[in-house]
Amino acid sequence: MRITALAGGVGGARFLRGLRDHLDTRDDLADTSLTVIGNTGDDITLFGLRVCPDLDTLVYTLGDGVHEGQGWGRADESHRVQGELAAYGAQPQWFALGDLDFGTHIIRSQWLGLGLKLSDVTERLAQRWGLPDRGVTVLPMTDDPVETHVVIEDAEGQRAVHFQEWWVRMQAAVPAQRFIAVGMDQATAAPGVLDAIRQADVILLPPSNPVVSIGIILGVPGVRDALRGSHAPVVGVSPIIGGMPVRGHADACLDAIGVESTAAGVASLYEDFLDGWLVSEDDERGVRLSRAQVRGRPLLMSDRGAAADLAGAALDLALELRNS
Amino acid sequence: MRITALAGGVGGARFLRGLRDHLDTRDDLADTSLTVIGNTGDDITLFGLRVCPDLDTLVYTLGDGVHEGQGWGRADESHRVQGELAAYGAQPQWFALGDLDFGTHIIRSQWLGLGLKLSDVTERLAQRWGLPDRGVTVLPMTDDPVETHVVIEDAEGQRAVHFQEWWVRMQAAVPAQRFIAVGMDQATAAPGVLDAIRQADVILLPPSNPVVSIGIILGVPGVRDALRGSHAPVVGVSPIIGGMPVRGHADACLDAIGVESTAAGVASLYEDFLDGWLVSEDDERGVRLSRAQVRGRPLLMSDRGAAADLAGAALDLALELRNS
Repeated sequence: MRITALAGGVGGARFLRGLRDHLDTRDDLADTSLTVIGNTGDDITLFGLRVCPDLDTLVYTLGDGVHEGQGWGRADESHRVQGELAAYGAQPQWFALGDLDFGTHIIRSQWLGLGLKLSDVTERLAQRWGLPDRGVTVLPMTDDPVETHVVIEDAEGQRAVHFQEWWVRMQAAVPAQRFIAVGMDQATAAPGVLDAIRQADVILLPPSNPVVSIGIILGVPGVRDALRGSHAPVVGVSPIIGGMPVRGHADACLDAIGVESTAAGVASLYEDFLDGWLVSEDDERGVRLSRAQVRGRPLLMSDRGAAADLAGAALDLALELRNS
Repeated sequence: MRITALAGGVGGARFLRGLRDHLDTRDDLADTSLTVIGNTGDDITLFGLRVCPDLDTLVYTLGDGVHEGQGWGRADESHRVQGELAAYGAQPQWFALGDLDFGTHIIRSQWLGLGLKLSDVTERLAQRWGLPDRGVTVLPMTDDPVETHVVIEDAEGQRAVHFQEWWVRMQAAVPAQRFIAVGMDQATAAPGVLDAIRQADVILLPPSNPVVSIGIILGVPGVRDALRGSHAPVVGVSPIIGGMPVRGHADACLDAIGVESTAAGVASLYEDFLDGWLVSEDDERGVRLSRAQVRGRPLLMSDRGAAADLAGAALDLALELRNS
């Protein structure tokens, strides 16, 4: 079976590792392949090196190399390189880069500099983490440079800042007026992305940020049309429980695009292709969708087992819809 | 007083730190400035990052940040980034790069990528290490890319390899047929280099490699002529004691250019501008130079104090020649 997922960083990665764990327990689904289409709008060039936070979080997590507590970056990390950069007065210092993580950014930047596409680079990185052996492929949504910028207004006036500056440095505390996916008008889907959607048996949307993660991927030319046209059931997991984001600043992002921070609000962003929607049990009663089937269940991925259970529930709903 | 020195890596750096230490003890030489013209022929691009081994050794040593035992690289170093690069299959692995050292290469590469000249970059790096406060300026011999390549012949046939591959990976065990300073025909001296020679009161040649360090600097257009034309006494320290190099593979380099590995042999490379030549006491009797005054004394820089004594002796000889 072929499963395709669209994903951002931490939440998506934990859900998908849960899915991989769940698949390992399912004899009926042996030889299932998982293709993950990752958001690259968070990508940023720091100290001359190309950093792809969401792709790295996906690869580290699915490769069992992630810092569990943080959910991103590497386990057993140190920060000596960044300390040196600070001593030389290099900016910015608000984005934490560990020494092990620097290894990834250095080799990626070298490979990109040699002319490799980001999809080729990501494949090489994933190889080191054993993803092909687990039937997992991580694809960047595009090989073209796309960067999410955020229009804000503060004491310095109205201006656009890189998504990471807003998310990490400002902790999304300054209201976003809108998001701009710089470069998207020139971008095309990376090789394999549209086929992975068209040829999927099941399509999953993990509880990633609906605006700046999944929303950005949906903006890649052809992706939304492929989802609409796919015969595979599309099942998503709400990133909002009772009006609050499970993690991160999804509410601040939804505010900016005028969508309410509820499970129903997020579903409305996917309504043209969504077939199934997992929401919190408390939210189940309040969510009525014209097209998608809604199912309530515990959404918190409090540990790896809970993530596997949640992913299993999403997969079961998809298989149910597929057979109905 | 203005002292100018031409220098390679470890030997040159230890000598010049000794000189700086010696100057601190000389009330008669307060406000002496030291300008070091560093070899950049050893420079190499590794993992997409520009590495300048000799300049870094000079800056780290003069800034009291060097790994004392090694003579190069940083004190209290770790190698986590390189371990990651190895895990990703990155080559080469024969060149040791520490985590702290990576900080330097990353920021230098970023600055070079932004269009700064190597001399500007080196000035910024030296600032962090407090060199301006100690009256020390480190200049790259040129801002243009020059790389020393070595023509060798082994099982793979005759070919040219980067100097570092021959020096570090092969440990200079494969005979060098000749050295090529790739890019030198297009190079010009970095800003300040020729003036530092022309306006010097004293010019010193530390016991650096006469072929691949000082020899490369002498090949920069205008440098040799400036030395010949300078009114300042030029005093050098032999890197050879009794036919053996004090450190490194100077003998293998001298072999390649058909010069014997003796204090006299090395002096012959400098004979058109050399005024004073410090040799080992055992060598003193055997060295007769037509132009330069020869003086015997202990050359081994066994510790920081010995380096200061040696530098002081070189400086005293220069001052003596200047006043005669």
